[in-house]
Amino acid sequence: MSIQENTSSKIVTAAMLVIGDEILSGRTQDKNVAYIATHLSETGIQLREVRVIPDIESEIVDAVNHCREKYDYVFTSGGIGPTHDDITADSIGAAFGVSVDYHPEAMDLLTRHYKVSGIEFNDARKRMARIPDGATLVENPVSKAPGFRMENVFVMAGVPLIMQAMLQSILPELDGGAKMLSRTIGAGLPEGKVAKKLGELQEKHPDVSMGSYPCFRQGAVGTNLVLRSIFPEKLENAFNELKEILIELGSEAVETT
Amino acid sequence: MSIQENTSSKIVTAAMLVIGDEILSGRTQDKNVAYIATHLSETGIQLREVRVIPDIESEIVDAVNHCREKYDYVFTSGGIGPTHDDITADSIGAAFGVSVDYHPEAMDLLTRHYKVSGIEFNDARKRMARIPDGATLVENPVSKAPGFRMENVFVMAGVPLIMQAMLQSILPELDGGAKMLSRTIGAGLPEGKVAKKLGELQEKHPDVSMGSYPCFRQGAVGTNLVLRSIFPEKLENAFNELKEILIELGSEAVETT
Repeated sequence: MSIQENTSSKIVTAAMLVIGDEILSGRTQDKNVAYIATHLSETGIQLREVRVIPDIESEIVDAVNHCREKYDYVFTSGGIGPTHDDITADSIGAAFGVSVDYHPEAMDLLTRHYKVSGIEFNDARKRMARIPDGATLVENPVSKAPGFRMENVFVMAGVPLIMQAMLQSILPELDGGAKMLSRTIGAGLPEGKVAKKLGELQEKHPDVSMGSYPCFRQGAVGTNLVLRSIFPEKLENAFNELKEILIELGSEAVETT
Repeated sequence: MSIQENTSSKIVTAAMLVIGDEILSGRTQDKNVAYIATHLSETGIQLREVRVIPDIESEIVDAVNHCREKYDYVFTSGGIGPTHDDITADSIGAAFGVSVDYHPEAMDLLTRHYKVSGIEFNDARKRMARIPDGATLVENPVSKAPGFRMENVFVMAGVPLIMQAMLQSILPELDGGAKMLSRTIGAGLPEGKVAKKLGELQEKHPDVSMGSYPCFRQGAVGTNLVLRSIFPEKLENAFNELKEILIELGSEAVETT
């Protein structure tokens, strides 16, 4: 990530709820979390929690109500298709205590879409126009059936391509805060050798969060050191000190990004 | 998954906690959830929830205490290395209200390991022997630094290779219940065409959970239909009815697994 001045020091947070038995069963590997995390971060929103929960209304209601109180934004993926196991809209309605009805605008756009496609707009497909009262639609440029926004909760599809398109529709609506900036060094040293000095550096720079992750580099154990801060100067200072520490410790192959 | 008789109808559940800013920042994509879900399922344990949480003690404590009450087992990954940001052991200690000390057995095995390797067993590395009082060790055949079990909570490393080896050490200790069996059909029909009949089939077979997932098959929209049950006969009956329904609906390219 490029280093740029933060115009705000406001911290804006988010949670993501991945709804679906499919991830929990291990059959499908989640592909949405990293995409959302990265794009929110670029918008100045910090993803603070992810929950993967099953297709059970009470579980969805509990998670939504917990997270919408605790975080500035909540994003959900999954469960908005035409089949009986797509219960996200009803669950969001239950979480907010509002009813769920056919949304005129959603009915219009799906009517037009299926007419043009020559596909029957049957009752199952009409389910995709059922939206909690008071919600506004989120555009789905891929397959038309919309997501929706209910206060600070954004409901998106689970299919990665559609989720990504929906997130792009949503991003301009979001109120970002301070951007979390980061610098990474890949050090040719094991964590155990870096740990003491890194801990001291962390003590000295409380506004820079320092993470250490073991990795394998050309067959040897190495460490990726990730520094994060909303303050560009503090980040650069800590980063420069860390580079010096690594050279002192005898690290070869220091790469920075 | 092969269909075999369930010797038990007891339902055993689990949650997983992925601990680390690294996944939440989007820098790293989680590779552990699908592995754990699959192996637990084969042991007769159903993964019911996953939470990805940051390296913040209060967040870890809350998630651990919520999940260890709600589920039969809890598995954590991440945060047990030698650096200052590895706070899982202390957080588990705080969750259980016990202190965290150098565990004699862990000290022994790490002392031997570093002696043999010719690597200094410094204070940072000794941190990896700090284990909550009352916990038992989980073997780490890859890099020796152990995980641990505290009542129904299993604490594992975040590095996928090490996590996988630790889970293999743990599996024989677990008390599995009914195995969740599954059958999948890939249908050459869009969800919207299958939805009505699938919903009726779900009503008729309450002990079989039916999931529908859109997919792309040879350039066309298709649907993966996944049936799950702990009852082998009920699963087979529902599966056979579903196959007939799909043929009636004109599905081509029905593949089953």
